Amino acid sequence: MATEISGTKRPGGRTERTRLAALDATLALLGERGYAELTVEAVAERSGVHKTTLYRRWESAEGLVAAALLMGAEQEWAVPDTGSLEGDLRAVNLELVRYFTTPGERELPTASISAAFLSPRAAEALREFYVDRHARSAAAVTRAIERGEVPPGTDPVEAVRVACGPIFYRLFVSREGVTPADAGVAAAAAAAAAKAGVFTATNGGTASPPA
Amino acid sequence: MATEISGTKRPGGRTERTRLAALDATLALLGERGYAELTVEAVAERSGVHKTTLYRRWESAEGLVAAALLMGAEQEWAVPDTGSLEGDLRAVNLELVRYFTTPGERELPTASISAAFLSPRAAEALREFYVDRHARSAAAVTRAIERGEVPPGTDPVEAVRVACGPIFYRLFVSREGVTPADAGVAAAAAAAAAKAGVFTATNGGTASPPA
Repeated sequence: MATEISGTKRPGGRTERTRLAALDATLALLGERGYAELTVEAVAERSGVHKTTLYRRWESAEGLVAAALLMGAEQEWAVPDTGSLEGDLRAVNLELVRYFTTPGERELPTASISAAFLSPRAAEALREFYVDRHARSAAAVTRAIERGEVPPGTDPVEAVRVACGPIFYRLFVSREGVTPADAGVAAAAAAAAAKAGVFTATNGGTASPPA
Repeated sequence: MATEISGTKRPGGRTERTRLAALDATLALLGERGYAELTVEAVAERSGVHKTTLYRRWESAEGLVAAALLMGAEQEWAVPDTGSLEGDLRAVNLELVRYFTTPGERELPTASISAAFLSPRAAEALREFYVDRHARSAAAVTRAIERGEVPPGTDPVEAVRVACGPIFYRLFVSREGVTPADAGVAAAAAAAAAKAGVFTATNGGTASPPA
């Protein structure tokens, strides 16, 4: 869930440096202008990478945005380990609230979610990013099962969706804003539901493996 | 929550007919083209209302979209009464899943949520629409309190946010799609959390009145 998309140390030669320059510029422009105003020309100007190279490698502004969003899955990120499922989910939610509400920081993740409405490739990149984050977040539920906090068979991703769903709902659907206190309530709700067995396959939960 | 925005029987004279023609055309174009492509000219052509009238009354495409989205709050809608909180929330979630996934129907509500990323006035209209839907949905929790199903003091809107948050998260954040089964799991989670007392002010829930 925490969604620092840019900034990893990445080694590599000239091709890799070109890739990083182009995709970092794409993310910067996406945050500043949004998807609708993003052009290959602007990425060329910002990155110093020639337009011809950008078109050859990424085809279009849409291709650049999709590739840039997928960089997020290269990031190191692990779900916090606080000793309880509620604590872990609250920590993830607090990261989300901070990231999506801090001026100067919220623009990029917000533009990423917005871009997915306008571009199927951006939507697919976002989906892949969250598949990765779901897989990493599953550790919190695995630990809770081992501690006997929640029943075996609890679907880890359902718990994560219930914890962070209300945060995104407040931000982008009901548009009512979100606070750290809201992050705690949503995490407590997900943990209580998990403890009650709502996310086990035998109790109406999905039987799908964590993805 | 359920979000049939157009189609109520509305009486009225010529001014009212003009208003409905303009706003219905705005909604139709919003669903077909999305906010970024919507123009006052296109609304004039579709509605038969003169461009000058549209500019005088709504100023811009943004003004038309905001007014059109607020028509949703004029709609009659009540939260279903199934006899249990989980059943009521499941029924609302199933309406949402149907409305946001049925081709030919999902375009308008999806474009409304998308428009709010591009237009502050659309975002404010969406917020007002959900304030209204939250107030109507609160009845499900009030009934559950009266039945002794959930503790007195349960915040009705928190229960609604936890129930429908995962639906919107799947649709517009993780972009993984949503099924009627998912609607049931999220409703069960919200009901279990409400029963566990998570949404009472004394238990970390918000103390705010239903809004």
